[in-house]
Amino acid sequence: MKKFILDDGRLLSGDHDIEGIAKDLYEEVRDLPIISPHGHVPVAWFAQDLHFANPTSLFITPDHYVTRVLHSQGVPLSALGVNRTDYTDDEARKAFLLLGEHWNAFAGTPMRYWFEDALQRVFGIDEKFGPDTAGRIYDEFDELLASDEFTTRELAKRFNIEFISTTDDPVDDLALHDKVNADEDFPARVAPCFRPDKYLEPARADWPELAAALGAAADVDTTTYEGFHEAMRRRRLYFKEHGAVASDHSHADAGTARLTEEEARTLYAKALKESIDPDDATRLRRHFVNDQARLAQDDGLVMTIHPAVYRNYDHRNFVEYGPDTGADIPDKVDFAAGLRPLLNEYGNNPDFHFVAFTMDETEYSRSLGPLAGFYPALYVGAPWWFIDAPEPILHYFQSTVVAAGFTKLSGFIDDTRALCSIPSRHDMNRRLTARFVAGFVADHRLSLDEGRDIVRAAVRDQPRKVFKLD
Amino acid sequence: MKKFILDDGRLLSGDHDIEGIAKDLYEEVRDLPIISPHGHVPVAWFAQDLHFANPTSLFITPDHYVTRVLHSQGVPLSALGVNRTDYTDDEARKAFLLLGEHWNAFAGTPMRYWFEDALQRVFGIDEKFGPDTAGRIYDEFDELLASDEFTTRELAKRFNIEFISTTDDPVDDLALHDKVNADEDFPARVAPCFRPDKYLEPARADWPELAAALGAAADVDTTTYEGFHEAMRRRRLYFKEHGAVASDHSHADAGTARLTEEEARTLYAKALKESIDPDDATRLRRHFVNDQARLAQDDGLVMTIHPAVYRNYDHRNFVEYGPDTGADIPDKVDFAAGLRPLLNEYGNNPDFHFVAFTMDETEYSRSLGPLAGFYPALYVGAPWWFIDAPEPILHYFQSTVVAAGFTKLSGFIDDTRALCSIPSRHDMNRRLTARFVAGFVADHRLSLDEGRDIVRAAVRDQPRKVFKLD
Amino acid sequence: MKKFILDDGRLLSGDHDIEGIAKDLYEEVRDLPIISPHGHVPVAWFAQDLHFANPTSLFITPDHYVTRVLHSQGVPLSALGVNRTDYTDDEARKAFLLLGEHWNAFAGTPMRYWFEDALQRVFGIDEKFGPDTAGRIYDEFDELLASDEFTTRELAKRFNIEFISTTDDPVDDLALHDKVNADEDFPARVAPCFRPDKYLEPARADWPELAAALGAAADVDTTTYEGFHEAMRRRRLYFKEHGAVASDHSHADAGTARLTEEEARTLYAKALKESIDPDDATRLRRHFVNDQARLAQDDGLVMTIHPAVYRNYDHRNFVEYGPDTGADIPDKVDFAAGLRPLLNEYGNNPDFHFVAFTMDETEYSRSLGPLAGFYPALYVGAPWWFIDAPEPILHYFQSTVVAAGFTKLSGFIDDTRALCSIPSRHDMNRRLTARFVAGFVADHRLSLDEGRDIVRAAVRDQPRKVFKLD
Repeated sequence: MKKFILDDGRLLSGDHDIEGIAKDLYEEVRDLPIISPHGHVPVAWFAQDLHFANPTSLFITPDHYVTRVLHSQGVPLSALGVNRTDYTDDEARKAFLLLGEHWNAFAGTPMRYWFEDALQRVFGIDEKFGPDTAGRIYDEFDELLASDEFTTRELAKRFNIEFISTTDDPVDDLALHDKVNADEDFPARVAPCFRPDKYLEPARADWPELAAALGAAADVDTTTYEGFHEAMRRRRLYFKEHGAVASDHSHADAGTARLTEEEARTLYAKALKESIDPDDATRLRRHFVNDQARLAQDDGLVMTIHPAVYRNYDHRNFVEYGPDTGADIPDKVDFAAGLRPLLNEYGNNPDFHFVAFTMDETEYSRSLGPLAGFYPALYVGAPWWFIDAPEPILHYFQSTVVAAGFTKLSGFIDDTRALCSIPSRHDMNRRLTARFVAGFVADHRLSLDEGRDIVRAAVRDQPRKVFKLD
Repeated sequence: MKKFILDDGRLLSGDHDIEGIAKDLYEEVRDLPIISPHGHVPVAWFAQDLHFANPTSLFITPDHYVTRVLHSQGVPLSALGVNRTDYTDDEARKAFLLLGEHWNAFAGTPMRYWFEDALQRVFGIDEKFGPDTAGRIYDEFDELLASDEFTTRELAKRFNIEFISTTDDPVDDLALHDKVNADEDFPARVAPCFRPDKYLEPARADWPELAAALGAAADVDTTTYEGFHEAMRRRRLYFKEHGAVASDHSHADAGTARLTEEEARTLYAKALKESIDPDDATRLRRHFVNDQARLAQDDGLVMTIHPAVYRNYDHRNFVEYGPDTGADIPDKVDFAAGLRPLLNEYGNNPDFHFVAFTMDETEYSRSLGPLAGFYPALYVGAPWWFIDAPEPILHYFQSTVVAAGFTKLSGFIDDTRALCSIPSRHDMNRRLTARFVAGFVADHRLSLDEGRDIVRAAVRDQPRKVFKLD
Repeated sequence: MKKFILDDGRLLSGDHDIEGIAKDLYEEVRDLPIISPHGHVPVAWFAQDLHFANPTSLFITPDHYVTRVLHSQGVPLSALGVNRTDYTDDEARKAFLLLGEHWNAFAGTPMRYWFEDALQRVFGIDEKFGPDTAGRIYDEFDELLASDEFTTRELAKRFNIEFISTTDDPVDDLALHDKVNADEDFPARVAPCFRPDKYLEPARADWPELAAALGAAADVDTTTYEGFHEAMRRRRLYFKEHGAVASDHSHADAGTARLTEEEARTLYAKALKESIDPDDATRLRRHFVNDQARLAQDDGLVMTIHPAVYRNYDHRNFVEYGPDTGADIPDKVDFAAGLRPLLNEYGNNPDFHFVAFTMDETEYSRSLGPLAGFYPALYVGAPWWFIDAPEPILHYFQSTVVAAGFTKLSGFIDDTRALCSIPSRHDMNRRLTARFVAGFVADHRLSLDEGRDIVRAAVRDQPRKVFKLD
């Protein structure tokens, strides 16, 4: 067996001169602890010491980045364990072989990069993954996962995580967060994140029940708009008291227009009676989003938005497998128009922090860069989801830095539910940050010392500042 | 006369390290036969051994890529022979001199690249083209074209074409295709392509006659929607029986929403009576396009779309010179919204192959990459027309590979009516594919061996797979 | 004190091979005189020999590129002297210290590049600017500005400006332009530019007075549309007689659709009576813009457009500080649809020159490149405002040259009101032009000699041709 060793200079540039500078810059940050201000790893994995059933349940089934590519090769999601309660170990092993068989489909993708990186750096497996080795690697892996060294908590400890956020329902009691943060044996701070999306969508059939559930959690009567608003206020405070630093929001567009208070009351009442029409539901939702920013003026939670995705784009896939199974597709977005009401009202408050993420790369230079280069509250979020990949990350820096500088970027956000990809994603981003800045050093726009300061600030200081971690 | 020799490393990168790797990769594919799954060369050029009247009738008059740039310099299209029946040899020679005179306008464009490449590699002329040499080169050229070595068929043979598709009217009897494919002396397989655009546009004034003509060709009564659909089914099968592998579609948008069967019947009847309004005509057209995908589920023809062009953007140019004379301009397109009905219905069928081409580069990372990274049926078409050029081709790879991998790209499509540009266009693309992959090898994302496999697959295996040529 | 010397190879590429070629090309143009066909420096600065009050009044207060970034760091604009009549020298010095304190916010931005460049090349200050040196540099600077060597006119002379255009109100008598152009001691030709924006916006509350003022200036009764049109015609001619070469236009969109003459008359009358609704006002404005192109067919003024900006995006900022204070944000634009009426009517006239600028980079490859590659009248304007920066400038070349060639670009436009940034901006652009062309030489698409010709033409011949300066 030929050893497969990742090149230490990977991603640092194909140009030798720039690669040399990038290596220097990367050394400044390669070993810094991980700060992960937004992601989707279940808190239970940190609070309880769980074993993964097998490599497939760690690397394939829950990772819609991976399952979607296999699906694009004609592999049915059921074969990968998605939405299966009767999935057997034998099927899990076969799924891993399928991944090997279709490994060429991943060439050039970040999913392959993260997988190979985790394989070697986390699990010490230095064989090249592919059709011929998938079975052997599965077995080796399976053995490691059965040991006590690669439980969920042990993995998290290995990763040198300083801060990590989960994503949580506003009615959650956050007991597991309290548990893990009280646990002196667990080194990372694990913060909840207030994610009220479904409570802000009056067009949902189950919205009246959601409003009632929110009221119950907050001990407030939510049969009026005022009550709903008060319940939100209380739950946000509850989250903050339990360690949250941010609220996160993902809706179909970036709209934030306010209604008059009377309109809000009227539409709220209609929505409760399920007699609101779709346009009014959209207007009420935008008002609700604006309300979240308003509440943030007082409670200080950072507000992050991830708008403009066609969720469950494929209807049959949704019916068969449910949400978050790979059939989400980015939509165009218009931040300048959508955010204008919000930014006009709150954007000049430097104590309010607002981070906008996009998968519509055209918005970086046209809207988000210029907006962040004026509004103290606004930070441009790092490339997200489909564009959390080398070329788009370099493009993001190119498009935003010239308009807004480095200090108005969010720092890296992994936004992942794939635990083992966390160190790989952060390392990828550090390498690319070093590469981008190395380009500026190489063409004499920055000195090497300035480059070092910028890279270190980008990796450590910036996310700590933006997410108010100090 | 100083010899002008194209550098063998052209386009392979300005960075010497990457250029070295790219040369290695390029060697893998430089001599592979040409596969051209979509283009516009007349089948008569392959079926009959024609002489070109002169260099202008080969290189200028029919090539709207060239005439539009000369037009942008103030040269009237009539001087270039466009839409002229009385064009003289003397005028043709003058047009070639005009090309020389304005040669600086082509610096940096692919048109110049293809022209110089063909001049040297196809015709063995190793003098630099320009104002001072245009006359001499014209004469040398003219002599070559008069010989029996540079007829249409001899040119095609030189090019080492394995497969080439023409573009054909659904009512065509395809007799010339049968002739050339029966001809053992002609090495390439020449496939027709089913291109029903005008039959799917009920807003056209001549649409009732087109529907009738389609019916006549299919021997079906097309006075009802059902009859029209059956006629389409039959003509597609006829094309398939005569070697077609694909249908091609170019409309103003990417819409594919279905009507109810009753709506389709009603709007069809209105359209036949020329009483359909523009919005309904658009709705009916989108339904027709969806129908083509439906028919492909049975007959297996690959479906390719080239949407969103303002055809005949300049009204006076259209009146004076007719269609396809350079005044077509790309429009914005929205694939995610437009294709949703089609992909929801047929996108999960791996036996259905659907290729989407765009000139709106923003769609690569926002829509087409993510969509092709989920739907087995969808492949991202290579850059088309104005963006079939080095920088956009590299950008295409950068934007799509990270989301969908190399296996969900269409392979190169030349889409040209300029015969002599075919080898130059394919060679350009091979060089750029090698260059892009070399970048991944240089920054240690792929090994050199993997790079070789990817480049070879991209040039040969991928178009054969996508267009079902095996 | 350690000397800070800008590297002579700055911006010429991080790749050593390309940098070497770029240096060669840059040498061709580094010392050519400046041609500045569009900008906002007040004519008074050339006509009268003014002293700047202090460095802040030169480098910070009037430069919304700089103030917006400081604002994004939480610095109130009032602290920078914006819209202040009571601003003291002491406050000015403090503002300069604030700039030093926040200097890291400018890392990677063109504003930092221009500032450092001007500091060293114009003022001979070779100390690195930053928090520790801002005070010392302010004092050194202040002394220089008090001398007679750094007055407005002396600065302009140092810059080797051959031609510069201001931006002027149609009713301006242009006396200062006459004065400076008659002055043999001042080397540059200073042209006015006809900028009728506000007169073309019938939705403005003050529009009736503006129409009347225009009539008064032109000595024409503007109570009818015909009179208004005649007044425009006369004022354009007046500008031309006083040296203008161009008119410039910036509206919310790129629309140019004509009304019928009767509609124009009717809407004009409504607008005068302040009873025009917003949609009709937009339609009338687009007709007015089309009229400007029509007038240009006779008077020969070059027409430049800078559309699609949300002016005064932030309402409170506008109320407190007025227009042009940094809260302008780019909007999406649709040139293909918007310009179609204008280009269909006038685009084929090679004597009409029309230059379209955009901050929506997506339009370069989708619309402007293809349009300029057909219409003789159209030139693609250089990157503007937020995208007048290295990476977007390279992207502009990449996106447009392959479709339209180098001869259909506008040449560089600084568009600035920051006098001292003029030589730095032009130098930056020359370096980047050399860098872009060097890439084509390095990958063997152009010979070094061709590269030299192209760079020289881009810097000197092209703006002279496009703006009819010969």
